[in-house]
Amino acid sequence: MQQSTLVRLKEGFELNKPILVVGLPGVGLVGKLVAEHLVDELEAEKIMEVYSPHFPPQVLVNKDCTVRPVSNIIYYGKANGNDILFLVGDHQSTTSQGHYELCSLYLDIAEEFGVPRIYTLGGYPTGKLTSEETVLGVANNTKLIEEIKEYGIEFRESEPNGGIVGASGLLVAFSGMRGIDAACLMGMTPGYLMDPKSAQFLLKVLCKMLGIEVNTDSLKKKAEEMENILEKLKEKEEQQTLPEIKPTEEDLRYIG
Amino acid sequence: MQQSTLVRLKEGFELNKPILVVGLPGVGLVGKLVAEHLVDELEAEKIMEVYSPHFPPQVLVNKDCTVRPVSNIIYYGKANGNDILFLVGDHQSTTSQGHYELCSLYLDIAEEFGVPRIYTLGGYPTGKLTSEETVLGVANNTKLIEEIKEYGIEFRESEPNGGIVGASGLLVAFSGMRGIDAACLMGMTPGYLMDPKSAQFLLKVLCKMLGIEVNTDSLKKKAEEMENILEKLKEKEEQQTLPEIKPTEEDLRYIG
Amino acid sequence: MQQSTLVRLKEGFELNKPILVVGLPGVGLVGKLVAEHLVDELEAEKIMEVYSPHFPPQVLVNKDCTVRPVSNIIYYGKANGNDILFLVGDHQSTTSQGHYELCSLYLDIAEEFGVPRIYTLGGYPTGKLTSEETVLGVANNTKLIEEIKEYGIEFRESEPNGGIVGASGLLVAFSGMRGIDAACLMGMTPGYLMDPKSAQFLLKVLCKMLGIEVNTDSLKKKAEEMENILEKLKEKEEQQTLPEIKPTEEDLRYIG
Amino acid sequence: MQQSTLVRLKEGFELNKPILVVGLPGVGLVGKLVAEHLVDELEAEKIMEVYSPHFPPQVLVNKDCTVRPVSNIIYYGKANGNDILFLVGDHQSTTSQGHYELCSLYLDIAEEFGVPRIYTLGGYPTGKLTSEETVLGVANNTKLIEEIKEYGIEFRESEPNGGIVGASGLLVAFSGMRGIDAACLMGMTPGYLMDPKSAQFLLKVLCKMLGIEVNTDSLKKKAEEMENILEKLKEKEEQQTLPEIKPTEEDLRYIG
Repeated sequence: MQQSTLVRLKEGFELNKPILVVGLPGVGLVGKLVAEHLVDELEAEKIMEVYSPHFPPQVLVNKDCTVRPVSNIIYYGKANGNDILFLVGDHQSTTSQGHYELCSLYLDIAEEFGVPRIYTLGGYPTGKLTSEETVLGVANNTKLIEEIKEYGIEFRESEPNGGIVGASGLLVAFSGMRGIDAACLMGMTPGYLMDPKSAQFLLKVLCKMLGIEVNTDSLKKKAEEMENILEKLKEKEEQQTLPEIKPTEEDLRYIG
Repeated sequence: MQQSTLVRLKEGFELNKPILVVGLPGVGLVGKLVAEHLVDELEAEKIMEVYSPHFPPQVLVNKDCTVRPVSNIIYYGKANGNDILFLVGDHQSTTSQGHYELCSLYLDIAEEFGVPRIYTLGGYPTGKLTSEETVLGVANNTKLIEEIKEYGIEFRESEPNGGIVGASGLLVAFSGMRGIDAACLMGMTPGYLMDPKSAQFLLKVLCKMLGIEVNTDSLKKKAEEMENILEKLKEKEEQQTLPEIKPTEEDLRYIG
Repeated sequence: MQQSTLVRLKEGFELNKPILVVGLPGVGLVGKLVAEHLVDELEAEKIMEVYSPHFPPQVLVNKDCTVRPVSNIIYYGKANGNDILFLVGDHQSTTSQGHYELCSLYLDIAEEFGVPRIYTLGGYPTGKLTSEETVLGVANNTKLIEEIKEYGIEFRESEPNGGIVGASGLLVAFSGMRGIDAACLMGMTPGYLMDPKSAQFLLKVLCKMLGIEVNTDSLKKKAEEMENILEKLKEKEEQQTLPEIKPTEEDLRYIG
Repeated sequence: MQQSTLVRLKEGFELNKPILVVGLPGVGLVGKLVAEHLVDELEAEKIMEVYSPHFPPQVLVNKDCTVRPVSNIIYYGKANGNDILFLVGDHQSTTSQGHYELCSLYLDIAEEFGVPRIYTLGGYPTGKLTSEETVLGVANNTKLIEEIKEYGIEFRESEPNGGIVGASGLLVAFSGMRGIDAACLMGMTPGYLMDPKSAQFLLKVLCKMLGIEVNTDSLKKKAEEMENILEKLKEKEEQQTLPEIKPTEEDLRYIG
């Protein structure tokens, strides 16, 4: 367990040029919300679990009081006749080296499955108080940028100008060296709290790009719950301490 | 010494499906107190010492002014005709990677000895001022949960909802992948100080589960000493600074 | 990607005893400014890219919205009939071990190319308010010190007396063990901000040493811009917060 | 350079059961002062240099403006007809793992040279204002404790009760597993500043144990200089800020 541990849950199936959609925890949990929503709606199937000493040394407790280690998981789904892989997870690496190591592992997996394109999903912290409909993009080649501009993704010179920290960025940059097209799509979010509203905007664009339609009720419901929570907080003017709904600070450091 | 160093003190003995009881330093030192109490009462024998660069780079001084490195130790005892292994120690790993590495080592050892079941012991921080009789549990499968509920262990949906940090959690989660039943049993404790009272409650339940009875005088004595200390502290209203009896902050971070 | 990754962009060319000039981020970004200026002016050619898990787990966004991983880069240029290699980069290692590992890699490369001499460039923080013309030096042998004193480089007993942190120092010290002459040349800089003025002074001396002349307009322009920024800041007396122009604190820790 | 790097400067000489004296930086720099004093007085010869990525990524500047990497060094000297090895250095490891790794390396070297006994030297922080003549000891076996008590070394039950952090402790504890007698000898020191006075007391005892006599003038001079500095500081009542003479905080964390 010195290095990353990969558990393959299903063997011997063939995928036809699957797109890989990555939604790991990050700013506003936007990417995670979108990817997990698609996993649910497309009834995608868990095919791989990744455990790593670079994740926090921690287990999570399920509803039934069984426990599971922190993991990243790959799901396989089908939409509009196309194969899609989803990479989601509880945490990103807690160490710099781990980020590089895990991204290298994920690109090995992508290559093995013949992935021609990767979309990493994330949130872009605006520091403003409300979510915006805009989806900001970066990519690993200009041809891809031209192509996906058509779906309304905005590309702003040198933005994010602080760069992109974490898996969402590394996967896009390093996949280029392996001949895989990749883009990072970022929902604009205040960035302080889980943001299902920004996730809805991002989901809409992604679905267009994938040529699919999915029910968004559960995301809408989450967004409404969030609104309620925020309203109550405003009433009480206790916005300083939001322990329950706040993703961990660590998670918020990552754009994707 | 790059990796964990294992010193086997005794060779060539056969164990018959020993249960492994784990009591490493954690919240209120509850798990450590219980496991070390059983080691003493059952006159268990030291069979392995583990040294690791993931422990603090520190030695401890014995009464006779000899020194020993920080270690985790495995004892072998017999109770009610059954073999029991105890894993106790001075410290848990100081690094994330070390937690994963050491847990992997301990599960290798457990497999080698044919361990069919692991109980990891810990404290559950309530933040309240007094210890409670309740013992909270999580496990790596629902069948085991049903079985040990009979002994009065409480299972609460998704609790601890912050998960379990450290060896107590990792051992339970990863032992499942090796076909070993495992549960983490947590005494409810204020969590601020060493808590021999909570340890007594946990010991009682564990003894029932193991079908044994042990003298608890020394734990009771420790609990009384602790009461005295606390009373004196209240009198002096100097509860802020308790350097002598306080486990290190690091130790308190772990549930088990 | 566990260790440093080296991408060789150009093969099969012969270099004739190239001098290696190193300008990685450090105090006042002096070394980086000088080396990158020479790369531009000499139209040096990118021949190697180094990626490492010891760099921040981050990607940078280009003007055209494509991304690139954090890297160190080696350029090859020709000046005054001599071959010169330049080592520049976005970041130095974020870990102690990484510094040693990367310097070892760079010296391997230097040996392979038959590099007879290395100049590492850096800034020396004076804590004063204005840049000075002085260039301070240290080297890995006294013969080299005598030689380069001729160019006006100052050598002051035991200075910098806090030593030199980062690649600029390690490369000079360890190249001695490989039989390579090396000196670290430091521009005197206030050390708080990017300092193109100090870079100009250092560039002047270095050009003399290399027997070349280069246009310094772009550095002058940067220096003027910096002056303007500083003047405006003085007017507003807001010198406390300079987020845009300030190199990261991490970068400022390194002398070279 | 991934791991410890060992440079052997002299080959092919035979040592006759040399005692190893270890004086690395620690509390009050007591151990370092004593060991370096003996190296000077006995005109011991440098036989090994150790470089490690676990040392700070830094070089030190010599008087003549040449640089040297941070290192630990082994010297060989002769006193009273006996061979003695000295381990001294600029820094201890900056990482936990490094401490274990380097100590393991030093014990390999000790075994290779047939070292039968190790004395690690350090300071014991009393928190009081004046140095004491007492030398406190711990050892890796009780027979050795009985033997060296004769020289006036004090052994106090379970002290230091916080244990011993760093190489001085680890070397004593782990040398026992290799069949090498070892003791840690600690001069009582206020612990705030370099303490040549405490070093003098420790040196006196050590010389008795080694059966040698050495000139202590230079240590006395250092102690007087220190007294002068302290007196001036008291006069000015500026005892808060002593940047020049203070060892780094890191160094002060180690007992030996």
